[in-house]
Amino acid sequence: MRIAMLAPIAWRTPPRHYGPWELVTSLLTEALFARGVDVTLFATLDSVTAARLDGVVPAPYNEDPQIDAKVWEFRHLAHLFEQADRFDLIHNQADFPAHAFANLTGTPIVTTIHGFSSDRILPMYLPYQDRVSYVAISAADRHPALRYAATIHHGIAVETFPFDSAGSEDLLFFGRIHPDKGPVEAIAAARASGLRLHMYGIVQDEDYHVRQVAPLIDGEVIRYHGVAGGAARLAALGRARALLHLINFDEPFGLSVVEAMACGTPVIAMRRGAMPELIEDGMTGFLVDSVDEAVEAIARVGGIDRAAVRHAAVERFGVARMADEYLALYRRTIAAEARRRASADGV
Amino acid sequence: MRIAMLAPIAWRTPPRHYGPWELVTSLLTEALFARGVDVTLFATLDSVTAARLDGVVPAPYNEDPQIDAKVWEFRHLAHLFEQADRFDLIHNQADFPAHAFANLTGTPIVTTIHGFSSDRILPMYLPYQDRVSYVAISAADRHPALRYAATIHHGIAVETFPFDSAGSEDLLFFGRIHPDKGPVEAIAAARASGLRLHMYGIVQDEDYHVRQVAPLIDGEVIRYHGVAGGAARLAALGRARALLHLINFDEPFGLSVVEAMACGTPVIAMRRGAMPELIEDGMTGFLVDSVDEAVEAIARVGGIDRAAVRHAAVERFGVARMADEYLALYRRTIAAEARRRASADGV
Repeated sequence: MRIAMLAPIAWRTPPRHYGPWELVTSLLTEALFARGVDVTLFATLDSVTAARLDGVVPAPYNEDPQIDAKVWEFRHLAHLFEQADRFDLIHNQADFPAHAFANLTGTPIVTTIHGFSSDRILPMYLPYQDRVSYVAISAADRHPALRYAATIHHGIAVETFPFDSAGSEDLLFFGRIHPDKGPVEAIAAARASGLRLHMYGIVQDEDYHVRQVAPLIDGEVIRYHGVAGGAARLAALGRARALLHLINFDEPFGLSVVEAMACGTPVIAMRRGAMPELIEDGMTGFLVDSVDEAVEAIARVGGIDRAAVRHAAVERFGVARMADEYLALYRRTIAAEARRRASADGV
Repeated sequence: MRIAMLAPIAWRTPPRHYGPWELVTSLLTEALFARGVDVTLFATLDSVTAARLDGVVPAPYNEDPQIDAKVWEFRHLAHLFEQADRFDLIHNQADFPAHAFANLTGTPIVTTIHGFSSDRILPMYLPYQDRVSYVAISAADRHPALRYAATIHHGIAVETFPFDSAGSEDLLFFGRIHPDKGPVEAIAAARASGLRLHMYGIVQDEDYHVRQVAPLIDGEVIRYHGVAGGAARLAALGRARALLHLINFDEPFGLSVVEAMACGTPVIAMRRGAMPELIEDGMTGFLVDSVDEAVEAIARVGGIDRAAVRHAAVERFGVARMADEYLALYRRTIAAEARRRASADGV
């Protein structure tokens, strides 16, 4: 089975820090390669993979100002689709632009929709649903107008997240500093609980950060550490009483949610988007509907069994499960294409 | 000869007001159709043509906020290239994205490069120069690294621009309010000459307009009229002593320059970009290197024969000449493709 894996070019694959689409693409690519699948990763040329790397884009457009995003996105797509016939299946992780090439190749295409951002993008999904197999990353993110081939939750490399059986008394915020992610709500809940809050993440909305978040950071009770990588990141995810994920949007998935759980840290999250699919209420954390309910949950979260949280993450959100589900989808898709061709040939 | 004409989707084809790429695309399409060429215009669905209109984009993205530019640009491209085999040649007027499809079709492609904006776009031109025939819109706009099939100056519908033999004592600025176009320089030259200046054009750089242009507009000597269309536009172009085109960039062409000339109005322009190709110094206007030289030229411009200006515009910048040159290029390109195929078939 020859798979072309099309990564986004916003960040390196895998990303150096932030880059959830590229992270999932990398995890799946490496898992498929480890199982002996003939996989070619189309990504920025500084990407790292045990599989075959192919591409033309010198560097990620979010990391190198010399890289014009539009110019190189078209080069990236053309480079893959000019050799599409060499593959049994193209797995598109890079949003809708690949669909423009779908009717110009006979190779089947699977697209993982990494969050359905707006109805404005429907015109690049609806007309291609007979040609492209769509994967939702959560049931919550399925658009009612679209037909999906599967819902496949992301998997993470759970073995690389050390289990922290003790945690700590401190709370944790882990995500982009952006209103969507609810950093201000996390601060309010921590203050009301009289507990320290450690915050990690890139500033995505500078204006919001300066006006609403930064003034609340005192470096004592509310501490902002910027972006953490490597061991510091893993330690931060585990050394917490709970992750506060008080989001203000219907988040289609939450990688930091399952990463925290893999370290044994329970998650207190707003009951929105994919959160009810990721968190078993009362078992691996709590689903809440307000900051007040989050404060109550913080008081009760000490009763959660951290080993059970870890166990649930390993069972439900490991890379192996994700790779299994994608491989099964690839096989179904390739078989359907073979049947279609046989029938078109009048066999 | 079956031609697919790919228009941009920023504006309607032809544009309602501003939209130079769409204007040239429309003029060429209509001229080809009038000569009996089988031409299909791929443009926004509100476009107007005597030829066949094909497309999927409901409205221009600059006119309808519901239209996501990226989504619809991909739909627009896919719609054409999915039926590329139906045409003898594709004439791409819509920038580099079409090149991503060049190696996925056998149909030859001509791309008119409407101004080479920056070296950052070279990666979508250099790799495709064996597959796509490039047209420069002026000698000045040729990039030294690229191979061109032709240089073809734009043509305008000269017969729709009435000759104004008298002009007036007032000066004219006609272009986007943007530092590139030199509105502040035009104002300075008019002030120094003690002459009234009429200004027309869309505000493209709002900040620049508010800070540097608007404070100089007194409504008396310096008058800003916004965007003019139809008869008002034609009257404005003709009723002037001279058009001041004191640009601060290497403009690849200047439609307003040749439009003013078609009305008999001489042009005083900075000696930059394509200006020496458009203006015959001392005959149809003056080429200058500074605002001071522009002031001197304003004093001398009364000596220019307006009938000679009109005549030069009709001779050199009519649509017929442009259509002739493109038709000759289409024929050469289609013949070369036929030879290439014959040779590939071993004939």
